[in-house]
Amino acid sequence: MLEAKKQAVAKALLFFLPIGPKAKTKMRRHRCHQAVRSESETESETDTETMRCISCKEEYGARDAGTCKECYEEASETEEELKREIEDLKAKVAFLRFWSPLDHAHRGSTSPGPFFPDVVLVASDDGSPGLPPVPVPSHKAVLASRSPVFKAMLENEMEESRSGTIKISDVSYDALRAFVNYLYTAEAWLDEQMACDLLVLAEKYQVKHLKGYCEKFLVSKLNWDNSLMSYAFAHQHNAKLVLDAALCLITDNMDKLTKREEYMELVEKDPRLVVEIYEAYLSKQVNTAAHKDSSVKS
Amino acid sequence: MLEAKKQAVAKALLFFLPIGPKAKTKMRRHRCHQAVRSESETESETDTETMRCISCKEEYGARDAGTCKECYEEASETEEELKREIEDLKAKVAFLRFWSPLDHAHRGSTSPGPFFPDVVLVASDDGSPGLPPVPVPSHKAVLASRSPVFKAMLENEMEESRSGTIKISDVSYDALRAFVNYLYTAEAWLDEQMACDLLVLAEKYQVKHLKGYCEKFLVSKLNWDNSLMSYAFAHQHNAKLVLDAALCLITDNMDKLTKREEYMELVEKDPRLVVEIYEAYLSKQVNTAAHKDSSVKS
Repeated sequence: MLEAKKQAVAKALLFFLPIGPKAKTKMRRHRCHQAVRSESETESETDTETMRCISCKEEYGARDAGTCKECYEEASETEEELKREIEDLKAKVAFLRFWSPLDHAHRGSTSPGPFFPDVVLVASDDGSPGLPPVPVPSHKAVLASRSPVFKAMLENEMEESRSGTIKISDVSYDALRAFVNYLYTAEAWLDEQMACDLLVLAEKYQVKHLKGYCEKFLVSKLNWDNSLMSYAFAHQHNAKLVLDAALCLITDNMDKLTKREEYMELVEKDPRLVVEIYEAYLSKQVNTAAHKDSSVKS
Repeated sequence: MLEAKKQAVAKALLFFLPIGPKAKTKMRRHRCHQAVRSESETESETDTETMRCISCKEEYGARDAGTCKECYEEASETEEELKREIEDLKAKVAFLRFWSPLDHAHRGSTSPGPFFPDVVLVASDDGSPGLPPVPVPSHKAVLASRSPVFKAMLENEMEESRSGTIKISDVSYDALRAFVNYLYTAEAWLDEQMACDLLVLAEKYQVKHLKGYCEKFLVSKLNWDNSLMSYAFAHQHNAKLVLDAALCLITDNMDKLTKREEYMELVEKDPRLVVEIYEAYLSKQVNTAAHKDSSVKS
């Protein structure tokens, strides 16, 4: 009996002896293993395990788990491929981009530079009193390739094609110059005025790419103060992107609307547009109500 | 003394008692936490913890840790931005891309279509016996914009500019047609023959973008059988990309080299090129040796 006790003590004492680190680690690993495999655990428990993020080098737990190494590496490869594709496309743009004949044409000089133009465009209301309008040299092939309107005009041997001069009405020399330049380079320096002028030309001559470019710019410049004017302008020139953005901004601020001077003017000048604002506002309210309803039900 | 023993046994016995699951888990969590924080541990130890990958939904351990959730989300945003940029660039390419005047020109007809060409190119050795060479209609402005050689030719009022006909020697009608088409569209359908023909034209008229396009294609088609011919061709037409790739392939298979028929021919026709192969091989061996050396030292 005493012998049995002795043995029990001997066994028991083992637990008081210091255990070597290796042994400890083994126990720990074993238990961690269980901790992970066991299905019964709640997130808060597994969340205490942490890993180090390859990207930000911070430790993270299960709740903040992103991707495994393999997926991370795949994603990085994809990113590299996309960047390569962008480089290729930029090189293609640089190759296809024409130097504009205007690089060599200066205001007050009709020299088109050594670029063999076969047509000139003239701004019918060039804003320089006294001076004759300055022709903007161009190529029929470029105009026809960028604008179906020019294409029809030039193919059908209209007066413009025969005379080699295309008159553009209601546009300044600078806007016309920027317009032609865009047809060659797909680039334009924009402020709000120029964006409006070019949008009008793009709409008139059906240069979709330029129209989209101007619309994006105008949307980025939208604010409460210019929203009503932008709305009316977009309406007049069929600029859907700007129209929707402006309408959204206006219908979000209906309480302030009627106090605006431009509002009174619009009611005077074009009440139909004002009606459309109220209609948009109404349908917005209906939609919001319906949405609230459904979210309450669900 | 016996009392002391009794107490010891009592304490010791605690370790034999079954411990409740909660308590177990607590211990486990505590130890796992240590396991991660402790710097002293090896990878294989922390590797036993697992998380679930957002992307592939698989469980992964520390050794396979990728990114945390935040970095994963950032990466996804970047990918979206890159894709948007690609869309914009593709739209720009589509806008700048010219329709080729050849879309309307058919072999055997000189009608250039309604695209106002002001110059024609003629393949001096058009491969159709009996028939006169078919002119390829084009625009001085396009040729000059894509190739500095054409630019100089046309600006300096050389014979070509006056006559409006540019003779291109040592080229088939199909190659010339593809060449002009590329100047308008930055696109070409390539097989190995066409890639070689276009590379020669691109080199002659300094159309870098086309040359790079052909070189990439030829590199993708490189193999042991065409490596020597590709090497000689690349040498002749200054195609560095193809040259380096071919040289690398050849110097990796020097043992088989001298048995090749093309090798004998090259020794006959242009021994300097063969010397360059051996020089490249030699410097490769030296570099490899140096690399081995340094990796042994470090």
